[in-house]
Amino acid sequence: MKIVCLDMEGVLTPEIWIRVAERTGIRELRLTTRDEPDYDQLMRRRLSLLRKRGITLRRIQGIIASMRPLAGAGGFLSRLRGKVPVAVLSDTYYEFAMPLMKKLGYPVLFCNGLSTDRRGFIADYHLRQPNGKREAVLAFKRMGFRVAAAGDSYNDLAMLRAADRGVLFNPPPKIAEECRSLRTTDSYPGLLKELLR
Amino acid sequence: MKIVCLDMEGVLTPEIWIRVAERTGIRELRLTTRDEPDYDQLMRRRLSLLRKRGITLRRIQGIIASMRPLAGAGGFLSRLRGKVPVAVLSDTYYEFAMPLMKKLGYPVLFCNGLSTDRRGFIADYHLRQPNGKREAVLAFKRMGFRVAAAGDSYNDLAMLRAADRGVLFNPPPKIAEECRSLRTTDSYPGLLKELLR
Repeated sequence: MKIVCLDMEGVLTPEIWIRVAERTGIRELRLTTRDEPDYDQLMRRRLSLLRKRGITLRRIQGIIASMRPLAGAGGFLSRLRGKVPVAVLSDTYYEFAMPLMKKLGYPVLFCNGLSTDRRGFIADYHLRQPNGKREAVLAFKRMGFRVAAAGDSYNDLAMLRAADRGVLFNPPPKIAEECRSLRTTDSYPGLLKELLR
Repeated sequence: MKIVCLDMEGVLTPEIWIRVAERTGIRELRLTTRDEPDYDQLMRRRLSLLRKRGITLRRIQGIIASMRPLAGAGGFLSRLRGKVPVAVLSDTYYEFAMPLMKKLGYPVLFCNGLSTDRRGFIADYHLRQPNGKREAVLAFKRMGFRVAAAGDSYNDLAMLRAADRGVLFNPPPKIAEECRSLRTTDSYPGLLKELLR
């Protein structure tokens, strides 16, 4: 019995922070875990920038509400869910992701949470647990599942390596080069085939 | 951060074995975990009966394909998935459940598997792990989730008791009486309220 674990941003949806950077004009928000592997450092910078520039959670949610899944992601995910159970494992936040999950037919999502202050600014982020993606894969293995996983970024590598089968989807050349032991594909038909193999 | 775990049969769908009993005319197949708490004993009897009466897996799948979720289950599940991540935890088999999951928009399902022999009879059943429902709840807790769970039968009690909040949905009077410490509801609006509390 098999379960498939998918990263969200880069596999099913665009990168949320890049879209927020574009819409707010704050170029520094463009940095992702592709650029800065230390996640806490990345988040501290983001939250500080948002506060300085007067951008509340509600404003960000408005931007995210206008986003759509990647072209082809909906069809890919439907076909996959018709074959095997699928869980989306992400370092994003429920407060961000829900409108995108709705557009994908509510696959189950394991991610993190945000808290806000009285003025509506994001005060802090709350990880469910350290290394959440990897821990979820290990938990599924302990439940008796074989696990196939797909991701595109630094923050996916521990998950991909913990899985029985790890697949890189459309990774930046630097990551593809560093991880030659993982299978790589850049199309949804290719990804479907690799995950169901 | 919260996750909701739902039993399938009795909460979202009718009891599969009861429908199979009705359609095949084999009355003994009506017995469920509501009647026989020893699951292995129940399954051995079922598989032996099916073989004696010439009923293959494909025949059973044909019967299940004609089943529909319980009235109101689809709307309940959609509303719930719009608020929190949801996992369906069942003692059924992927080979049985997939047509029903399709009709419910493919919520993630953690269940078990079947193997068949050359003639198409069910040869054996394969549990992912012992006490699968309870173990899934404990795994979600270790992942940092608060867990709310709903079920209706003997095979749900360990799951309901392991959860932070356990709710009985439309249980037979005997179980409701034995489990007075659990909340009980018999409507989807009531269940939604209990699970999101």
